[in-house]
Amino acid sequence: MTKAPEQPDRAILLISCPDQSGITASVTKFIADHGGNILHADQHIDDQEEIFFMRIEWSLEDFKLTRDEITRDFSPFADHFRMDWSLHFSDEHPRMAVFVSRHMHCLYDILYRYKSGQLACTIPLIISNHREAEDIARDHHIDFHHIPITAETKVDQEQREIQILQDAHIDLVVLARYHQILTANFIEHFPNRIINIHHSFLPAFAGGSPYAQAYRKGVKLIGATSHFVTEQLDEGPIIEQNTSRISHRDTLQDLKQKGEDLERIVFSRAIIAALERRILIYGNKTVVF
Amino acid sequence: MTKAPEQPDRAILLISCPDQSGITASVTKFIADHGGNILHADQHIDDQEEIFFMRIEWSLEDFKLTRDEITRDFSPFADHFRMDWSLHFSDEHPRMAVFVSRHMHCLYDILYRYKSGQLACTIPLIISNHREAEDIARDHHIDFHHIPITAETKVDQEQREIQILQDAHIDLVVLARYHQILTANFIEHFPNRIINIHHSFLPAFAGGSPYAQAYRKGVKLIGATSHFVTEQLDEGPIIEQNTSRISHRDTLQDLKQKGEDLERIVFSRAIIAALERRILIYGNKTVVF
Amino acid sequence: MTKAPEQPDRAILLISCPDQSGITASVTKFIADHGGNILHADQHIDDQEEIFFMRIEWSLEDFKLTRDEITRDFSPFADHFRMDWSLHFSDEHPRMAVFVSRHMHCLYDILYRYKSGQLACTIPLIISNHREAEDIARDHHIDFHHIPITAETKVDQEQREIQILQDAHIDLVVLARYHQILTANFIEHFPNRIINIHHSFLPAFAGGSPYAQAYRKGVKLIGATSHFVTEQLDEGPIIEQNTSRISHRDTLQDLKQKGEDLERIVFSRAIIAALERRILIYGNKTVVF
Amino acid sequence: MTKAPEQPDRAILLISCPDQSGITASVTKFIADHGGNILHADQHIDDQEEIFFMRIEWSLEDFKLTRDEITRDFSPFADHFRMDWSLHFSDEHPRMAVFVSRHMHCLYDILYRYKSGQLACTIPLIISNHREAEDIARDHHIDFHHIPITAETKVDQEQREIQILQDAHIDLVVLARYHQILTANFIEHFPNRIINIHHSFLPAFAGGSPYAQAYRKGVKLIGATSHFVTEQLDEGPIIEQNTSRISHRDTLQDLKQKGEDLERIVFSRAIIAALERRILIYGNKTVVF
Repeated sequence: MTKAPEQPDRAILLISCPDQSGITASVTKFIADHGGNILHADQHIDDQEEIFFMRIEWSLEDFKLTRDEITRDFSPFADHFRMDWSLHFSDEHPRMAVFVSRHMHCLYDILYRYKSGQLACTIPLIISNHREAEDIARDHHIDFHHIPITAETKVDQEQREIQILQDAHIDLVVLARYHQILTANFIEHFPNRIINIHHSFLPAFAGGSPYAQAYRKGVKLIGATSHFVTEQLDEGPIIEQNTSRISHRDTLQDLKQKGEDLERIVFSRAIIAALERRILIYGNKTVVF
Repeated sequence: MTKAPEQPDRAILLISCPDQSGITASVTKFIADHGGNILHADQHIDDQEEIFFMRIEWSLEDFKLTRDEITRDFSPFADHFRMDWSLHFSDEHPRMAVFVSRHMHCLYDILYRYKSGQLACTIPLIISNHREAEDIARDHHIDFHHIPITAETKVDQEQREIQILQDAHIDLVVLARYHQILTANFIEHFPNRIINIHHSFLPAFAGGSPYAQAYRKGVKLIGATSHFVTEQLDEGPIIEQNTSRISHRDTLQDLKQKGEDLERIVFSRAIIAALERRILIYGNKTVVF
Repeated sequence: MTKAPEQPDRAILLISCPDQSGITASVTKFIADHGGNILHADQHIDDQEEIFFMRIEWSLEDFKLTRDEITRDFSPFADHFRMDWSLHFSDEHPRMAVFVSRHMHCLYDILYRYKSGQLACTIPLIISNHREAEDIARDHHIDFHHIPITAETKVDQEQREIQILQDAHIDLVVLARYHQILTANFIEHFPNRIINIHHSFLPAFAGGSPYAQAYRKGVKLIGATSHFVTEQLDEGPIIEQNTSRISHRDTLQDLKQKGEDLERIVFSRAIIAALERRILIYGNKTVVF
Repeated sequence: MTKAPEQPDRAILLISCPDQSGITASVTKFIADHGGNILHADQHIDDQEEIFFMRIEWSLEDFKLTRDEITRDFSPFADHFRMDWSLHFSDEHPRMAVFVSRHMHCLYDILYRYKSGQLACTIPLIISNHREAEDIARDHHIDFHHIPITAETKVDQEQREIQILQDAHIDLVVLARYHQILTANFIEHFPNRIINIHHSFLPAFAGGSPYAQAYRKGVKLIGATSHFVTEQLDEGPIIEQNTSRISHRDTLQDLKQKGEDLERIVFSRAIIAALERRILIYGNKTVVF
């Protein structure tokens, strides 16, 4: 999980491929043969789909290959096993953009964690269709882009947003209660790289006003779900969920307040898992090592 | 909650009525004026619906009215405030019937709690469309009725069941994983007196195979819900819910096994709340004091 | 729980006294006789200690007594039943001081909730033995007092603190990870009015470095406890606790990070309960309605 | 976790050794070189103690070594890396003895799970210092040994128990609320092979009457802990823990009842982890893969 800052750089390899004999042995041998000390190795096999997943992290301290050489020399293995794979390095911090509307609790939480060193990323910019976040952005020396959206301006404004994100080389977009539905076009520009927090236990109470839905239904727990954004609203691969007990005594206002505490924790755990390269997506599900 | 057996008898009054001034004062004064010592008093107001709810429990030790006189003398108050009300006594144990199909875990749990004195009820009979529960019923000296059901026989067999329940003066029917949908006719005979356990966090994954649905969806928590049965399948007023954490490592079989633990606890808490007269129903919601 | 701001003022009465017949009836009749509409009424009886507890909240909208008259006219009842009692009004916001050392997470959380209207109090000042909180205090326009403490200066500096708190008419002191042990003299000035957050599940891991203790012990859950401060270190009446799952994979650093999330929620719930006048203390325990 | 019964046999290797480069690669290569398909591989490094832990499970379907040959051929690797290691096979079910006194809830739960196929073990016998479990043992066709214990007879009776366990080739002893303290002599006969359930969140409330201790202390959560038994009472390596929320409304009797639900789940999870060979012990801690 969290690494103390003084550690030597590490490489992280994420792999998924059809399940077959010898994968783990080949990958670990490749690393050991070049002097890498394996720090973490997790693997999982989906028995029904017959897919193999692996996350392996090793120290670069005495490793004999350069970063480019790893890619070059590992490729034949990857081709042999028909792997989807990606290679990351612990000192390459993703560049993360935050989208927010008017509810500030998730944004505040992210920025507190960012400032206190919990998030291994750079946050160069915040985008909002409102102005509430402008001050907090400035206090944290983060660029703030106010991009109001109406039905008429949506297509053009999203295009502006895409441009801003591309210009800033953004790797990950997190929607900290951003109350706009993104178009398919926007999502296609950032496939599996947009994380949302939804304030219910999905698939229950998808769509608008989940707390009001929960209140009307009379559930005894409220929930929060963080998931990747796909074209199907609130249906993307789930990263993290949690629930919190309520009772008949809780008003709709109480649900919102207790829910905010839940949202902050669920959202931050999903973001941290993404930043630590612990998530693999397949079909509409995730493996979170 | 649980009462030690040596306590003197207690009366329990459940009230719901339009919210208005003076209800609590009138009810508590009625009890105090006749020498009753109030042991528990809970009240709740639904601000939106403007409904007042109360559960009040008092000792009959020095109470000056007989049980019939309580009803006679309290009626004018109840009429004045337009109350829905019911009066119960701690020594009147509800007669409870258990319906079950082939999954025995909830039945075993109920019978263990029954035997060890946790359930303030009498269980005169078990009904099943299969024979798996026959032995355990006999071991506990409980009548077992095997009533197989097909599409053709359903109406007639349900009529038989209704007759059996009525002959045995059953107050409460609990569906311990009974895999038959009850008809509207059956439900009308036992309004707000049938409690089901559904193996998901409702409203997510209503209907059949909720664990398979949860597995396919890739949720990070599984749930269980106990609710009153109404004509809308899996939509009746929720009494109790809980969730349990799972991960990508859990197979469908693991979900079922972990889910069983959850079901047993959620179901038993709902049953205990019903037996202790702690549940009030309004609209499609419950107040559980 | 939370009240929308547009509500009329309410009175809250907290009562504890020897259990006896007629208390509830007398109190509710007193309120009803003067035109008060009871909004919440909770009572509890400790069967072993034979103590009666009550929290009752009513609307002042049509109430015929002034605030002073309530005290005057209720006193005879209180004397009759030998009550410990206190009377509060929803528009009288307690004045709360925050003490903090170098860990800022609880302070940030309190200030975020304060700013967003979740805390029905006024925070006129922050006191710290370090300077880390100075900026955030200024950002929120709250007086900051830097009062460093050494073994030699402790007595004098605490005297300064007491003076500051008294001059500012502070009702409640909350220790948001204040790493100084308060003297008996300090505590006596604010009996039952100092709330601490301890980063363990008390009584486990009292004293210093609870996360390091938990890590060494190999527990599978970490906890946090919020309690009133008494002369016995980490032994005062517990208001709120919670736990969070960890595993062998979590480093000591992970425990601290996950623990911070827990601390913030446990601490804020305890503070909110205190501000909403929902806590009664007896012996070394609390009733939290 | 749970495996469907139709799976081919699997080997499980548990390893702990000083952390060093190349362990994972060597072990996985060994398995792959002989045609084993790795199904699960977990590893963990304790950074502070510099110990490496591994659990690796592979299919024997196409594996070219016999069981004895695995031991023979793996030994040189084990010696090279100075491993503590053990080799298990999925079709070798441990023989488990249950000790119980008068509280039957954990025993009932174990026997229900045993009967329904959740526990991959054989239970040849139950030992008790009382007679309450005699009937349930007979119902499950399990030998029951009534071995009453007094201060005077303890040494002799324990000797009888050891003899019974040895004669029955018992691998694992589980104490399902066995209210006798085992002597050092007894424990030495079954090192790291005795699992206890303690009805508190250890290290809080060790020793006798933990629910009474919790009630007096006024905690807001109760807990349960399953751990290996060592000579230090209630101090052995913790396998699993959990907590459950209570309030001032819960009597001591309620604590016991809610606690029983917790105990059953915590205890069964610990037992299942042991039976699935997912636990490694080091110092006074566990790694539970």
